[in-house]
Amino acid sequence: MAFDPQEKPLAALLAPDILDLLEESPASVAAETEDLHPADLADVAELIPREQVAAFLAALSPARAADVLEYLNEDLRSDILEEIPASQAAALVSQMTPDDRADALETIDADVADEIVSELPAEERAETERLRQFEPDTAGGLMTTEFVSLSENMPVDEAFTAVRALARLGRKEATYAIYATGTDGRLQGVLSLRELLAAAPGATIAEVARTEVVTVAPSADRQEVARITADYDLIAVPVVSESGHLMGVVTVDDVIDVIQEEQTEDIQKMGGMEALDEPYMSISFWGMIRKRGVWLCLLFIGELFTASAMQGFEDELKRAIVLSLFVPLIVSSGGNSGAQATSLIIRALALGELQLKDWWRVAMRELPTGLTLGLMLGVLGIVRVVMWQKLGIWDYGEHYWLLGITVGISVTGVVAFGSMIGSMLPFALRRFGLDPASASAPFVATLVDVTGLVIYFLAALLILRGTLL
Amino acid sequence: MAFDPQEKPLAALLAPDILDLLEESPASVAAETEDLHPADLADVAELIPREQVAAFLAALSPARAADVLEYLNEDLRSDILEEIPASQAAALVSQMTPDDRADALETIDADVADEIVSELPAEERAETERLRQFEPDTAGGLMTTEFVSLSENMPVDEAFTAVRALARLGRKEATYAIYATGTDGRLQGVLSLRELLAAAPGATIAEVARTEVVTVAPSADRQEVARITADYDLIAVPVVSESGHLMGVVTVDDVIDVIQEEQTEDIQKMGGMEALDEPYMSISFWGMIRKRGVWLCLLFIGELFTASAMQGFEDELKRAIVLSLFVPLIVSSGGNSGAQATSLIIRALALGELQLKDWWRVAMRELPTGLTLGLMLGVLGIVRVVMWQKLGIWDYGEHYWLLGITVGISVTGVVAFGSMIGSMLPFALRRFGLDPASASAPFVATLVDVTGLVIYFLAALLILRGTLL
Repeated sequence: MAFDPQEKPLAALLAPDILDLLEESPASVAAETEDLHPADLADVAELIPREQVAAFLAALSPARAADVLEYLNEDLRSDILEEIPASQAAALVSQMTPDDRADALETIDADVADEIVSELPAEERAETERLRQFEPDTAGGLMTTEFVSLSENMPVDEAFTAVRALARLGRKEATYAIYATGTDGRLQGVLSLRELLAAAPGATIAEVARTEVVTVAPSADRQEVARITADYDLIAVPVVSESGHLMGVVTVDDVIDVIQEEQTEDIQKMGGMEALDEPYMSISFWGMIRKRGVWLCLLFIGELFTASAMQGFEDELKRAIVLSLFVPLIVSSGGNSGAQATSLIIRALALGELQLKDWWRVAMRELPTGLTLGLMLGVLGIVRVVMWQKLGIWDYGEHYWLLGITVGISVTGVVAFGSMIGSMLPFALRRFGLDPASASAPFVATLVDVTGLVIYFLAALLILRGTLL
Repeated sequence: MAFDPQEKPLAALLAPDILDLLEESPASVAAETEDLHPADLADVAELIPREQVAAFLAALSPARAADVLEYLNEDLRSDILEEIPASQAAALVSQMTPDDRADALETIDADVADEIVSELPAEERAETERLRQFEPDTAGGLMTTEFVSLSENMPVDEAFTAVRALARLGRKEATYAIYATGTDGRLQGVLSLRELLAAAPGATIAEVARTEVVTVAPSADRQEVARITADYDLIAVPVVSESGHLMGVVTVDDVIDVIQEEQTEDIQKMGGMEALDEPYMSISFWGMIRKRGVWLCLLFIGELFTASAMQGFEDELKRAIVLSLFVPLIVSSGGNSGAQATSLIIRALALGELQLKDWWRVAMRELPTGLTLGLMLGVLGIVRVVMWQKLGIWDYGEHYWLLGITVGISVTGVVAFGSMIGSMLPFALRRFGLDPASASAPFVATLVDVTGLVIYFLAALLILRGTLL
C-alpha cells in the first residue's frame, strides 16, 4: 500500500544524542531511553554507525535489548548475533519470546545458532530446540509456546488468582487469551481475560469459556493461519496437535507480518520475477540479477517464438509492408488485457473469493468481458487508420478501409484471447500446485504475443486476399 | 497470497439443517446455533437462498444477529438492512460496535441510513452521527468510540473494580487497553488489563501506565494507521484530537482488513486497471468494463504511437524486411524488464523501505542492473540469429552477423531503458501526489515500446548502413 513518504523522525532525532551518550556515559543510556518504545530504539540502532550497534545494545538491560532485537531488521539482527560472543547472544535471546528467539536463530549461521542455543538455560534450550524443528512458514514455526492454559474444572476466582500471579511475574501471555483444558489435557474452550473478570465468582472455567474455539494444526501453512485470523477477527490463534493438545499460540502481530511478506512475494512474482525475500536496498547486486535474470531469460526465450511467427508470415510482410506497422500495437493490446485479467484472478484466489472449481464461471465471465473490451479497442484501431488516411497524415493505400478492419478485428480477437489466457493461467498454475501469483503480466504477454501475431496475419489473409495480399 | 483452494466446509454442512429449522421451528434456530462462531453463521447466511437471510437473522437474538451482520459480506449486509423495516434494522445495528455500525450505514442508501439512524436510541444516534462525519478511510472512520479511559490519579484497585464492572456489563472495550487521562482530560498513558492486574495494590494508574503512547490523529490516512500498528505490534491504536484528547480506538482486526483492501487495490492497479472495490464475482458486467476499459483505451492510445514510430522507419523496413521479424521481441523485452522494476519499487515504497528522496540511489542501482540483464538477453538474441542461420533454419542473408549484433545491442539498450523507466515511474507518480501502484506493467510497457522501436531502428541504421540499409 502506498504510505505517506514519511520517515520516523523520532529515531532520526534521537540517534545523535544516543551516540554522544555512548561516547561519554554508556551507563546512562539505559535510563535516558527507558521511556522510548523498543521499536523506536530499533530504528535508532538502524540509523547509528554499524560498529556502534553492539555497544548500544550492551548499554541496555538484557530484557530491553531483547525487545529492541525483536524490532530490528533481520539482516542487522543476524549480523549482531553472529558477531557478539555466544554467551552474550544467549543472554539476549533468552529474554526474547520463544517464537521470536527461534526466528532470530533461524536467520543466522546454523553453527553460530547451535552455539548460542547450547549457552541457553536448560528450559529455554529445550523449548528453542523444539520450536526450531518446525518449518518457519507453518503455524508451528510462527507460534509462541508461552500461553495460559488452565483446567476447565478450576473455579474462576482460583483461575483469576493464577493469572494475576503470572501477570505479576511480568509474563506477557495473559495479554491474549486463557485456554481451558479437559482432564485429558485436550483444549476444550477459550476465554479472554475480560471474560474471566466478568465471570460470576462461583462458576468454573468450563461454565464461562467459549467452546467454539478456532484452531490450526502445527503444520498449517502460514497463509492459512492468516486467513483464519482475518476471517474470525482473532488476536491469537491456538495451535493444536492431532491429539487435541494445545502446543502454542500464533499472535496477531506475527500474522500481520505474514500478510505483508506474502503480499510482497505475490507482487514481485506478478512483476515477472522471483520473490526477493529481502528489502530492495539490502539485496546484493548479483542476488538481484539472479532473482530477475532467470525469469527474464525464460520470458525472452518465449518471446523468440514471435520472431519465428513473423518469419512464417514473411511473404505477407513482403507483399504488404504496411502490415508490419501495426504489429507492436496488436501484440501489446493482448498483453495489456491479459495483465488486467491475471491480476484480478490472482488476487481473488488469494483472498479466497474464488476457488479452483470456479474456473468455468470465470471463463464464462471473461469471454464476454474480453470481447466487449476488444470491440472498444478494435473500433479505436479502425478510427486511427481511417482518420490518419483522411487527414492525410499517412497513406495506407487505396485499401485503407480493409486495412483498418483487419486491424480492428485482430485487436478484438487478441484482447479477448488475452483476457481469457490471463484469467485461466492462475487457475492452471494452482491446479498443478504452483503459485497463481507466478502468472505475471510478462508471462501472460509472452503466451499471448505469438497467438496475437497469428490472429493478426490470418485476419489479414482473410480480409486482404486479392487486394493487398 | 495463495491460500489452499479450500471452502469453509462447516458453513456448507450447516446450511441445509438451518434451512430445515427455519421451515419447521424458527424459534429453535437461536438455541441450535448458539455454540457457533458468528463468522460461520455469516458464511451460512451467504450460502442459503437470498430470500431466507432476513428470516434467518430474525430467528437469532438481536445481539447475535448483529454479530453475524458484522461478518457478512458488504453487499448482502447492505441489501438486508435496506429491505427490512427501519425499526428492525435499527434494533440490529444498535447492537453493533459503534465503528461497525457506522461502516454498515456507510454502505447503504443514504436516505435509508438516515431513517435507520433516526430510529436509534438517543445515545447511539448521537454517537453514530458523529462517527459518520469522518472519512471512511481515515483513523476517525475506522475507530470505535468504546474504550476504557480512567483518571491517571485513580488507585489501581479502584480502576480494577471499574474495569470488572464494565466487563460484567458485557462491554467489549476492556479486551484491548486501558487509557490513562490527566485532570485536563488529555491522554497521558496506556496499560493493558494484564499490567493492571500486575500492579501493586497501593499504586495509582499514573505509576504503572506506560507513558510512551503511540497515537494517530483522526484525520490520519488508514494506511498510516496500518503502518503504525504493524511497526509497533499494537492490537489497538488510540486516536487522539489535536488537543490531546482520546477520541476513539482503532482495533487490530479492522487494521488487517485495511491492509488486505489496500493490497487488493494495489495489485489491481498494477494490473493496469482501476481498483474494483468489490469482489470479482459480485461486480456488475458494465462495472467491470468501466474499471478495465478506461485504462485499456488509454494504454491503446499510447500504443498507437508505436504505429507512428514504425511509419517513421518504413523506408528501412522496406529495404530490410528482415528487421520487422524482431520487432515484437525487442518491444516485449523492454516491457518485461520494466514490469519487474516497477513492481519492486511500488512494493518497497508501500512498505516504507524506500522514500521519495531515495529515487537517485534507486536509479544508480537500476542502471547497472538493467545493463547487466540487458547484456544477458542481448547475447541470447545474437545466439538465436546466428544459430538459426548456421542450422539452416532460416536465412537472414549474408550479413546475419551484423543483424544479430543489431538485435543484441537493441535488446541490451531496451532492457536497460525499461528497468530505468519502470523504477522511476512510481517515484514520479508519488512526487505528483498520485498512487505509485498506478505504474502498472502495461503502463510501463506502453512508455517503453515506442522508445524501444526507436532504439532498435537507430541501432540498425548505425550497424547495417551500407550493408542491409
